Amino acid sequence: MPKYTIGFDYGTNSVRALLVDVSNGAEVATSVFSYPSGEDGIMLDPRDPNLARQDPDDYLVGLSKTTKSILSTGVDPSDIIGVGVDTTGSSPLPVDRQGQSLAVHNDFADNLAAQCWLWKDHTSYAEAAEITEKAQGFPYLARCGGVYSSEWFWSKILHCLRTSPDVFDAAFSWVECCDFVVGFLTGNRDPLTMKRSVCAAGHKAMYASDWGGLPSAEFLASLDPKLADLRDRLYTEAYPSDTIAGYVTDEIAAFTGLPEGIPVAVGAFDAHFGAVASGARPGVLVKIIGTSTCDCMVHPADQPLADIPGVCGIVMGSVLPGAYGIEAGQSAVGDIFNWVSRLTGRSHDGLTSEASKLRAGESGLLALDWNNGNRTILVDPLLTGLMLGQTLHSTPGEMYRAAIEATAFGALTIIEQIEAYGPKVEAVVNCGGIAEKSDLVMQIYADVIGRPMRVSRSSQTCALGSAIFGAVVAGVYPSAEAAQDAMTGVKDKVYEPDPVAQATYRRLYALYKVLHDAFGRPGSAELGHVMKELIAIREDVRGV
Amino acid sequence: MPKYTIGFDYGTNSVRALLVDVSNGAEVATSVFSYPSGEDGIMLDPRDPNLARQDPDDYLVGLSKTTKSILSTGVDPSDIIGVGVDTTGSSPLPVDRQGQSLAVHNDFADNLAAQCWLWKDHTSYAEAAEITEKAQGFPYLARCGGVYSSEWFWSKILHCLRTSPDVFDAAFSWVECCDFVVGFLTGNRDPLTMKRSVCAAGHKAMYASDWGGLPSAEFLASLDPKLADLRDRLYTEAYPSDTIAGYVTDEIAAFTGLPEGIPVAVGAFDAHFGAVASGARPGVLVKIIGTSTCDCMVHPADQPLADIPGVCGIVMGSVLPGAYGIEAGQSAVGDIFNWVSRLTGRSHDGLTSEASKLRAGESGLLALDWNNGNRTILVDPLLTGLMLGQTLHSTPGEMYRAAIEATAFGALTIIEQIEAYGPKVEAVVNCGGIAEKSDLVMQIYADVIGRPMRVSRSSQTCALGSAIFGAVVAGVYPSAEAAQDAMTGVKDKVYEPDPVAQATYRRLYALYKVLHDAFGRPGSAELGHVMKELIAIREDVRGV
Repeated sequence: MPKYTIGFDYGTNSVRALLVDVSNGAEVATSVFSYPSGEDGIMLDPRDPNLARQDPDDYLVGLSKTTKSILSTGVDPSDIIGVGVDTTGSSPLPVDRQGQSLAVHNDFADNLAAQCWLWKDHTSYAEAAEITEKAQGFPYLARCGGVYSSEWFWSKILHCLRTSPDVFDAAFSWVECCDFVVGFLTGNRDPLTMKRSVCAAGHKAMYASDWGGLPSAEFLASLDPKLADLRDRLYTEAYPSDTIAGYVTDEIAAFTGLPEGIPVAVGAFDAHFGAVASGARPGVLVKIIGTSTCDCMVHPADQPLADIPGVCGIVMGSVLPGAYGIEAGQSAVGDIFNWVSRLTGRSHDGLTSEASKLRAGESGLLALDWNNGNRTILVDPLLTGLMLGQTLHSTPGEMYRAAIEATAFGALTIIEQIEAYGPKVEAVVNCGGIAEKSDLVMQIYADVIGRPMRVSRSSQTCALGSAIFGAVVAGVYPSAEAAQDAMTGVKDKVYEPDPVAQATYRRLYALYKVLHDAFGRPGSAELGHVMKELIAIREDVRGV
Repeated sequence: MPKYTIGFDYGTNSVRALLVDVSNGAEVATSVFSYPSGEDGIMLDPRDPNLARQDPDDYLVGLSKTTKSILSTGVDPSDIIGVGVDTTGSSPLPVDRQGQSLAVHNDFADNLAAQCWLWKDHTSYAEAAEITEKAQGFPYLARCGGVYSSEWFWSKILHCLRTSPDVFDAAFSWVECCDFVVGFLTGNRDPLTMKRSVCAAGHKAMYASDWGGLPSAEFLASLDPKLADLRDRLYTEAYPSDTIAGYVTDEIAAFTGLPEGIPVAVGAFDAHFGAVASGARPGVLVKIIGTSTCDCMVHPADQPLADIPGVCGIVMGSVLPGAYGIEAGQSAVGDIFNWVSRLTGRSHDGLTSEASKLRAGESGLLALDWNNGNRTILVDPLLTGLMLGQTLHSTPGEMYRAAIEATAFGALTIIEQIEAYGPKVEAVVNCGGIAEKSDLVMQIYADVIGRPMRVSRSSQTCALGSAIFGAVVAGVYPSAEAAQDAMTGVKDKVYEPDPVAQATYRRLYALYKVLHDAFGRPGSAELGHVMKELIAIREDVRGV
């Protein structure tokens, strides 16, 4: 009889459970639960567009609902031998001494600060800037691109301390969403002893074994003495996902239908597991394309790796245990396409059809992909979108294509930055719904990035990655790499760069870089040629 | 019995006839005829977005149709005592020796180059640049802003010569649309002797009495010897509109129903007559807001007036006879609002309703109003639109408001340029459908421009201006000013600047100017603060 693991993938709007055959990675059953709270699962504040929170109870309800749905397909629960969990991040939440969400306490049930602070919450941009400033002279930031982000752990906690001190004071500790869910599954949720994710700790909380774990109390006290106190109620060691975090308790077995006692892998972020399930290896960049994009690479532990300015983080073991994990990303990709669709009142299908009829450069439009700030390489959440070249004839389809191109230029900017500091990007594997569904996006990415675009075989790479680590902790494979070999692959279809489009995109990318630096970095720039060169490109493409 | 004149106003998509009581300016009857040819009356070329032509026959059919419609209301034709005509411009067309449109000849019936070259045709941008370059060392351009436009007379004719030499060679002469219609009405259409408009000649053909009329044969020959030859088949003198161009012929009387023998005023451009009908006087800027915008002022002939760089033209007698007429304008205003409406699939009413709920600066968006190039003060048809500050939450209403604000910033830029060279803009009177219908646009204009916005009493100021000159040539009034006193006025409602919005708009305008100069003029600029300052403004407005 085949054996299975379940991978749980907690996304921005819903959680997915995926039942996977550990012998070959076959995805046997899946179930999705949309978070019921807020707008599409996100609690918003109409007064502050930067705020995005989630009700932690939605995670627990989703765990039960999706598992029961999987089991209702007829799988024998006793054939399920392990569990893995990934979530968004950094999405920390305040917890009490027992590791329960503060939001379960009546005093805080309706308090937005007591919920989970979703990765895309940008309320703490001022605190991020302050952390960046005060971290000068410490070694912490060089490893995470030189700039601390408002999307990250300490910014959010410091913003809570400053703006909702009642919540901060009531919290015994803070946990990342991925650790929260794993703690719930295993009962091992005491904030002081639970097995926390090195992926979350390293990429978002400035954790590294080099300097003994979290940033020093001295540094944290420079932000606020209460943060230094909190340090002692967090953790001193974090773990890669081939580590067993604990075992499913009888209580959880009753709540979900999972077999009691099966191992649960230490959690991690969705993108990092997606990268594993897409075949991440040295030289292979995996792009997990969703509402935002996460780019992951691994680098052998025995080869030197310089710090890469602007990249989200370099963390030992965050993707594959025993290798450096390099994470970069774009704050919005699919979200920008969705925005164009909403703005124009047009469907993605219709827009894609129109945009597909255009050649590179033909619209005369050029955009920056910063509608949700810039995560890599400028690390600046306060940047905003830009589009130029509009005439009175510019159409929704042209705008849609320009938005896709902008995200491709942003992707190339990341690759060029990584390569400038050593690691070569020899192959690109994409995953996520957009990569699977949109030939247009993949072809534009191939043409802009100038490399063949491959697409991961799985439609659910993040959940599959969770299932892979479920198989590793269940002892099916001796390593994550061995599990990858058996359980992952890419699709047959490869998008090759078109030389004509590629040449045009090189010209457009040069203009993109001018705008990127002019608006994203201090310093003077010459822009008088930008609109003219766009028209020259358009005329050349049209052969006028 | 009251006496009447008819003003004919040839717009971009249709012609309007307006029957006006000469004693008080009352608008007694009106009729509109939409040009049947092309798309909304404009003949387009799908291969070239710069091309915009019109079938001259549409003008003549429209003359008959609208007049007959007016007469069908029961007015006694014998009470109609004069006629005036305004048209768009520069909208020149090639004519034969008899002054007939080349398009009536079978050889050229389907030739786009043989039609009327509509003002908004931008195919001749290369020729405009060449004319600007070769005019260095001649006095011609200082009077029209220092840059010759692709919208103007010689650019279009030179482009025809270069790209459709068969049409150029077949043309005996070229006439502006306003002269073409007046020539048809009066039978006085011999290209060598017809009474041509000084408004068209001065603003678009570099005509001035100072240098003896049109530019010299030497200069024209530097562009092409054939242009120098054409000079002799054009005109040596042009006239203001208090001049009688001729009298309605018996043939036209039969064709239209107009009384034979009534005087017809020399033609002019729509905006200039609109300015007259809105009460143009020294110190009063009249904004004729339509698909594009024309700004007109007059300046006393006995006061010195410097050349104003970037302004479309300074021409003696082009607005009020005996005064300098100053013309400036924006290449697209209503056209940009229409574009946003099309792009977003939303009605103007819906967009206006959404945009009206926003405060200045609240959207975080900022745009340049260059979707159709920049006519004043950069005089560059190859500039394009720009919008920045978009987030994932930016809405169609926010985009619409940003577009309105962009046109207001463009309007202020013109006013500041005029004032920098002498004339003070003490009052602003707006006319046109947008000024009448959109409280939102007028209030934003008041807040951005920092002056009360008044709106002309007439809904049809251009046609009313034509009727006013019909009354002048009929001898009802001794001067255009006397006719203005009797026949024009403004509405009671005045839009006063709101101090809070005005303060915010001063900050936004500073950013607009940075973008304006960065993208519109050679030279380096510092833009790293633009997006941040926009967010700071937004946060201040929201009180976050």
